[in-house]
Amino acid sequence: MSFEPADFAHAARDIAAAGRKLGALGLTPATSSNFSMRLDDGNLAVTVSGKDKGALRESDVMRVDAHGNAVGTSARPSAETLLHTQIYARFPHANAVLHTHSRAQTVASRLFAPAGVIRFAGYELQKAIAGYTTHESELDLPVFANTQHMPELVRAVDAWIDSGKPLYGYLIDGHGIYTWGRDMAETERHVEAFEFLINCELDLRRLRQ
Amino acid sequence: MSFEPADFAHAARDIAAAGRKLGALGLTPATSSNFSMRLDDGNLAVTVSGKDKGALRESDVMRVDAHGNAVGTSARPSAETLLHTQIYARFPHANAVLHTHSRAQTVASRLFAPAGVIRFAGYELQKAIAGYTTHESELDLPVFANTQHMPELVRAVDAWIDSGKPLYGYLIDGHGIYTWGRDMAETERHVEAFEFLINCELDLRRLRQ
Amino acid sequence: MSFEPADFAHAARDIAAAGRKLGALGLTPATSSNFSMRLDDGNLAVTVSGKDKGALRESDVMRVDAHGNAVGTSARPSAETLLHTQIYARFPHANAVLHTHSRAQTVASRLFAPAGVIRFAGYELQKAIAGYTTHESELDLPVFANTQHMPELVRAVDAWIDSGKPLYGYLIDGHGIYTWGRDMAETERHVEAFEFLINCELDLRRLRQ
Amino acid sequence: MSFEPADFAHAARDIAAAGRKLGALGLTPATSSNFSMRLDDGNLAVTVSGKDKGALRESDVMRVDAHGNAVGTSARPSAETLLHTQIYARFPHANAVLHTHSRAQTVASRLFAPAGVIRFAGYELQKAIAGYTTHESELDLPVFANTQHMPELVRAVDAWIDSGKPLYGYLIDGHGIYTWGRDMAETERHVEAFEFLINCELDLRRLRQ
Repeated sequence: MSFEPADFAHAARDIAAAGRKLGALGLTPATSSNFSMRLDDGNLAVTVSGKDKGALRESDVMRVDAHGNAVGTSARPSAETLLHTQIYARFPHANAVLHTHSRAQTVASRLFAPAGVIRFAGYELQKAIAGYTTHESELDLPVFANTQHMPELVRAVDAWIDSGKPLYGYLIDGHGIYTWGRDMAETERHVEAFEFLINCELDLRRLRQ
Repeated sequence: MSFEPADFAHAARDIAAAGRKLGALGLTPATSSNFSMRLDDGNLAVTVSGKDKGALRESDVMRVDAHGNAVGTSARPSAETLLHTQIYARFPHANAVLHTHSRAQTVASRLFAPAGVIRFAGYELQKAIAGYTTHESELDLPVFANTQHMPELVRAVDAWIDSGKPLYGYLIDGHGIYTWGRDMAETERHVEAFEFLINCELDLRRLRQ
Repeated sequence: MSFEPADFAHAARDIAAAGRKLGALGLTPATSSNFSMRLDDGNLAVTVSGKDKGALRESDVMRVDAHGNAVGTSARPSAETLLHTQIYARFPHANAVLHTHSRAQTVASRLFAPAGVIRFAGYELQKAIAGYTTHESELDLPVFANTQHMPELVRAVDAWIDSGKPLYGYLIDGHGIYTWGRDMAETERHVEAFEFLINCELDLRRLRQ
Repeated sequence: MSFEPADFAHAARDIAAAGRKLGALGLTPATSSNFSMRLDDGNLAVTVSGKDKGALRESDVMRVDAHGNAVGTSARPSAETLLHTQIYARFPHANAVLHTHSRAQTVASRLFAPAGVIRFAGYELQKAIAGYTTHESELDLPVFANTQHMPELVRAVDAWIDSGKPLYGYLIDGHGIYTWGRDMAETERHVEAFEFLINCELDLRRLRQ
């Protein structure tokens, strides 16, 4: 298996299929969420704003350049596209990014925002995150403050990476998750794994009160 | 995109499709819920009483006038049709109304009935409600007392609007939600967003006990 | 609409369809649950033991007489068939009986077994139970002790009815619900309504701790 | 009904079908879980590592010998295959093994790991476990410590069996469940029953706090 950037047609197809799958799982309520893939010409394929992600069609995917500007279309990219371009710039092996907005992600982000991080330990499913080979480790998922001003969020993410701490995904307070991988299949696995781990932490908190 | 009243055939098709979608999400148990759209002749298309909303057919939609009286049919409109006609009268831009009856809506209505309102703040998804552009705002969802006498409910809704407070939807105690929008797609987005926000508030309440 | 007993072919079709619907809702785990309908010749159509109710076929329905003895088949009726025959004997207007086994039904039955009853009040959805026309009423769902000896359960149900208290369904401790109606559609509505009301009571109990 | 080992083609088909069913129920997140069946030549059919179990194809099933070594393929069996071969060695009547990884299984395993066992009593659905004929009994599901070194887990399971205590399935801490049966249908019923019982115990713990 190789992990190469895709051409636009393949990327649009993979993005639409991911949307239908994640939508059916309830991770993209009320036209929230956005998805992207790195293209073989250095541009990105990203979802246009405001669509029902569970009914996504390939025509709901547009092309932007590495700075998030629309290419060859008058469609408007989401304001959050800057978070996608940052991930591709900082993680050269990332070829797909998924931002979802589940209820568990939102609730956990609000609950753990004061701590700034959710720490997972002792879960076999940590091994579903690429690079993890044992449950005997700790996996940190940071929670950044929400803002309507994207450059502030970009700076917070940069600061985390620059500090040398590992980063496989992050939550935004009152909002959802961003995670990425070498292809769409790996990225979907990361979304599913984080969603599972977050739900387990919430369950254990309710049960241990 | 324009937001115009529909003809009966299109309205019946949109209403039946919304019923199947909301039914599959579990928002319309035991033949509860009712839906409507404003028609281009000033009448309304509304669901007939007592149908399984998840299996709604276009023939389960009837026509009523702006006062809620059946037009061209012997079918009986729901007693709650008066709440639909009120919304179209008070909100000239509303072209669709959805009343659903989820478990979270019912539970939250009972829990927040003494306060009379659920206040949402800090959720990114507040932006899914038309007119909201930032999570840095407050969104109030009033809870009105239940009654089998519809004019009482109509008066309570009128009083809220007349007080000048914004209104995007409301709960009835022990019952479900009413919300509306400029077309069916926007109204479905409002139902999904309120359902999500209500569930988050219930989750946080359980987790913060 | 008339409420008449069905012939065997129609009953088998209605029972299989109800099983697929209730199975998809998660109400019939691990081959639990059983369903029946009154036939126009005074016999009953009932599900055979041990089938996956979500994948029920018409050939998984057998005929028994009013005492629960197999008619024209060597298939073995469930031991719980006696609870079905009792319902048809005591409620002349009942033409369908559904016994399901959801997680909420099981959990609530254990929680409310010491009280012997769950009392619902203030829910609009009480009106989904035939005969209820307002939420301003009380709806009692008794919880009987479980036993592997069916005649004991039959006596407990008889004692409740003989005391003159209304009965629309009942729970068995650690087990599921029995409910009935004039046809399969009404009985399905009763199952959905009780499942909804039970879940609301459990939610409110968790939230009001 | 006879309970005989299957040939490879039938086993692969049964395993793929079980994966689709359990995946749809949410029991196999993020490519977790693995399944197997005993073959009529003494070998086993097992799932290859790392596949989405909800989209399992017959080509995702491989053959291993009774010691867990690949037979006639260069595909790599999961490290956990040793737990499957142990079950077939210790339980001569077992012809199918399912290992799933639901959220409830993971949460319960962590909560009950200090006690080392979950004891079920008073549930009618205990009768869904082969050999149980009444709810008036106790059903113990042990929770073993997780380890990346499979022989340690094998020893823990052997020690339980050698102590003479009955064993119908077991949890691994922070991980999922293993259960088995005389054919795939019985094993699926065991998974569904344990998942149901575990969820009920968690619910009751939340409700009785």
